[in-house]
Amino acid sequence: MIMEFLVHMKVAPIDGGEEREKQLREQEAVRSRELAKQGILSRIWRVPGRRENWGIWRADDCDQLHNAFVSLPLFAYLTITVHPLASHPNDPEVQTRCATEDAAPSAGIAL
Amino acid sequence: MIMEFLVHMKVAPIDGGEEREKQLREQEAVRSRELAKQGILSRIWRVPGRRENWGIWRADDCDQLHNAFVSLPLFAYLTITVHPLASHPNDPEVQTRCATEDAAPSAGIAL
Amino acid sequence: MIMEFLVHMKVAPIDGGEEREKQLREQEAVRSRELAKQGILSRIWRVPGRRENWGIWRADDCDQLHNAFVSLPLFAYLTITVHPLASHPNDPEVQTRCATEDAAPSAGIAL
Amino acid sequence: MIMEFLVHMKVAPIDGGEEREKQLREQEAVRSRELAKQGILSRIWRVPGRRENWGIWRADDCDQLHNAFVSLPLFAYLTITVHPLASHPNDPEVQTRCATEDAAPSAGIAL
Amino acid sequence: MIMEFLVHMKVAPIDGGEEREKQLREQEAVRSRELAKQGILSRIWRVPGRRENWGIWRADDCDQLHNAFVSLPLFAYLTITVHPLASHPNDPEVQTRCATEDAAPSAGIAL
Amino acid sequence: MIMEFLVHMKVAPIDGGEEREKQLREQEAVRSRELAKQGILSRIWRVPGRRENWGIWRADDCDQLHNAFVSLPLFAYLTITVHPLASHPNDPEVQTRCATEDAAPSAGIAL
Amino acid sequence: MIMEFLVHMKVAPIDGGEEREKQLREQEAVRSRELAKQGILSRIWRVPGRRENWGIWRADDCDQLHNAFVSLPLFAYLTITVHPLASHPNDPEVQTRCATEDAAPSAGIAL
Amino acid sequence: MIMEFLVHMKVAPIDGGEEREKQLREQEAVRSRELAKQGILSRIWRVPGRRENWGIWRADDCDQLHNAFVSLPLFAYLTITVHPLASHPNDPEVQTRCATEDAAPSAGIAL
Amino acid sequence: MIMEFLVHMKVAPIDGGEEREKQLREQEAVRSRELAKQGILSRIWRVPGRRENWGIWRADDCDQLHNAFVSLPLFAYLTITVHPLASHPNDPEVQTRCATEDAAPSAGIAL
Amino acid sequence: MIMEFLVHMKVAPIDGGEEREKQLREQEAVRSRELAKQGILSRIWRVPGRRENWGIWRADDCDQLHNAFVSLPLFAYLTITVHPLASHPNDPEVQTRCATEDAAPSAGIAL
Repeated sequence: MIMEFLVHMKVAPIDGGEEREKQLREQEAVRSRELAKQGILSRIWRVPGRRENWGIWRADDCDQLHNAFVSLPLFAYLTITVHPLASHPNDPEVQTRCATEDAAPSAGIAL
Repeated sequence: MIMEFLVHMKVAPIDGGEEREKQLREQEAVRSRELAKQGILSRIWRVPGRRENWGIWRADDCDQLHNAFVSLPLFAYLTITVHPLASHPNDPEVQTRCATEDAAPSAGIAL
Repeated sequence: MIMEFLVHMKVAPIDGGEEREKQLREQEAVRSRELAKQGILSRIWRVPGRRENWGIWRADDCDQLHNAFVSLPLFAYLTITVHPLASHPNDPEVQTRCATEDAAPSAGIAL
Repeated sequence: MIMEFLVHMKVAPIDGGEEREKQLREQEAVRSRELAKQGILSRIWRVPGRRENWGIWRADDCDQLHNAFVSLPLFAYLTITVHPLASHPNDPEVQTRCATEDAAPSAGIAL
Repeated sequence: MIMEFLVHMKVAPIDGGEEREKQLREQEAVRSRELAKQGILSRIWRVPGRRENWGIWRADDCDQLHNAFVSLPLFAYLTITVHPLASHPNDPEVQTRCATEDAAPSAGIAL
Repeated sequence: MIMEFLVHMKVAPIDGGEEREKQLREQEAVRSRELAKQGILSRIWRVPGRRENWGIWRADDCDQLHNAFVSLPLFAYLTITVHPLASHPNDPEVQTRCATEDAAPSAGIAL
Repeated sequence: MIMEFLVHMKVAPIDGGEEREKQLREQEAVRSRELAKQGILSRIWRVPGRRENWGIWRADDCDQLHNAFVSLPLFAYLTITVHPLASHPNDPEVQTRCATEDAAPSAGIAL
Repeated sequence: MIMEFLVHMKVAPIDGGEEREKQLREQEAVRSRELAKQGILSRIWRVPGRRENWGIWRADDCDQLHNAFVSLPLFAYLTITVHPLASHPNDPEVQTRCATEDAAPSAGIAL
Repeated sequence: MIMEFLVHMKVAPIDGGEEREKQLREQEAVRSRELAKQGILSRIWRVPGRRENWGIWRADDCDQLHNAFVSLPLFAYLTITVHPLASHPNDPEVQTRCATEDAAPSAGIAL
Repeated sequence: MIMEFLVHMKVAPIDGGEEREKQLREQEAVRSRELAKQGILSRIWRVPGRRENWGIWRADDCDQLHNAFVSLPLFAYLTITVHPLASHPNDPEVQTRCATEDAAPSAGIAL
């Protein structure tokens, strides 16, 4: 059973000079693409003006999720907050998976 | 230019009895499907154990977003928090839109 | 894959008089025993002096966990906070499951 | 009378290089096993993505608990928060200790 | 083994009119004297200008402490926060219990 | 008129090596005993697992209290929070000072 | 020894209609003038746009201060926070009390 | 029109050794006296046990106030919070300025 | 000297039915236009999804500002927070007022 | 569609000595004027006594806004918080854009 998680990451200043920072960024971009291909990193956005991001991550459980975080080259610089998510009957993606709309669950948003 | 927003909603207790609550939920489900079809409501998840949700919403600007919220039958019961988002170079969706991977922007997560 | 969750619950005052409160408490005790037998409610403690508890819950994912909460007769009175947990190499229970101690993972607490 | 405590630990970055960190982790794992055998460290989980853990600790009183913390090789790096716990009538472990279920205390969760 | 706890209490407005409030206060004063005689309520102070107090309570464990709180006639109106305490080597009372000062433990305050 | 204060102290890491820390702790223990003999330091407890303490201090006013803090060898490392206290009619010590119990003030706890 | 206190007050909505509110305000104004004449209420300011005030109060100790608060006709509606103050060597009033400026204590602001 | 402001200052540790700190303190004391003579610094108190102060400052507007702060020799070490104040009808100083008490404004404290 | 203030307003639910709410809104719109014409209300924005706004207000001092707030028909429903502002050398409006750009003050943003 | 944003910036201490700080400030002033001419930086104010500012920024979306922040010479020292804004019917600027006042939208402030 795949679970989705809302994840917030805050990046501390990178020590070791600009060259090392550039290197780490490139390694991070490579690792991000791998996690995306494995279906673990689903979406990621910048918080405007901040060294922070919000992302949607997918994993079987928190151990797999934790291991994905640890595999990030920038892991030592990240302060990570995991918001566990449950599925919502009004989620457009849930509704698409249902064959007919009449069969779709009905509930007020956030209830 | 379409923007994406991370939106948190907290639902206050509904007054007026169970019948009214059921009615409002059904109207909310209908309106949610409309907003999903218009591409405004992109994803929505329950916070487990709480009358709260996290969602990804899409709009041209905050006025269109605000009007979408006001159109929800449960609007009077919602405490809404909007987190503005900027695009991230490692976002899998951004990368899919780029023709070749070599052309994809490279940056460390959250930088 | 069974996950464990640390769960905090705060109970709002029960309306409807003492008789109704007594009834709800008894139904809650019955439901708690059922959830314990299903292996979902693992441990639960009172916060001394408060209408709050801390518990260890087990579920396949957040949907099953959410449904367990909703099944509680007192659900409408609860403010629930879910802390997702990952397994820890020094956890005594993890170590018991390993055949020999030499094979046990080694890591500092909290690392 | 043995008491149980919910304990949160946050680990600061270890100074002195990777070798020292590896050494400290191994010493911590050894000490954890000793505390587990003494029945003081009951359970411990990682907070996914963070250098933090949640644990269930058992001690006669806060002095014994404090001494157990001080005995950890990583103690100087830990920010520890102790949540005192009282027993709950619906706790599965309490109920197991009672001979017959009819004799078990009955109370709503969190009351 | 007797433990000491620092306890903060906040009192919500009493409903039912002035007569009932006066009655509850008198019952509370009686119960306070009983708890003091049993050695459970050790000291109590008002927070100036607020319906709050700070107290030093003594109990064998959190169950006995919780039961003492529940026995207060005003319990339903109290928001209680328990701060667990460990003994301090510089505590004047600890030092008085030691026969000779040379034998007293020595440590900096708060270490 | 002697006032009592609830005082929380948090101790920052001591710089200058273990020897200096040991020295400062011994000086602190000596100064603590002096303040206890002067009746200014009344009680002090450790927060379990933390470099923090809670204490009951007695002084004529905040100037005398401030001077007592400044006289501590560890003062430069302390973050101090003073909670002013007023006397409570149910305080066991207040009641002991009254000749007859019938004359003791009566009030609900925390009122 | 007179102490000074910085006091913050937040006023809850007054129940009982406009007439009762007007009456209470007038009684409060009368009582304020009395406290000012006794030298207990020294200064008072409004927080612009809020039902809150900041004041400088003077009293022998927290018991006298608490009694002054309780004597306010609006006391039941007030949420009061007391900030204890110590004298500062650079306080203009302290310096005025010193005969010659050369004798005035010298210290950096806030040290 | 002179306005009054409630100002909180927190002083960071001074770098550069004891001699420099002593020098800065003396310069600060001198500048404080100048600001007091200009009527800008009205009152100042220590927060007991902390490197913080509360003060009453007077200025035409926030620009003049800001410039007064910048002129402090310790400015680089200060974290300053400005609480804007409006005049209160019950303020003893306001009432003294009014010729007759009958003409004084009447209002409940904090209204 | 005109000062500018950043003002946050939170609007509580209006009691008395929809008709009264509509009436109050119209009166509020009228009063807003008057305050705008007087140059007191400079700009106002909605917080998307919330009954809150941010505004730029202009007044001689906090008394005039407070009186403007009190004159709002919705005043009883508002929780207002005033952020005092000082002028910034890089403010485009300040720079426009200066005859030549060479004469404009130069400073880093926020310094 | 141009959006407006309320932006708070906090400036960390600049390393590298006074000369470098002066240089950065001058570059920042130059860049500020450019952003003002492009209509992106609309207004900016100092928080009195603090290395913080509040500003009104204008951009097509959060990507353009983020890029404007990144272009600031002081960007590495800034902690930026973006408050998204929606237009308000009572905004004086909105009303000016409407041809006749009768056509202006009417709503209570903050509704």
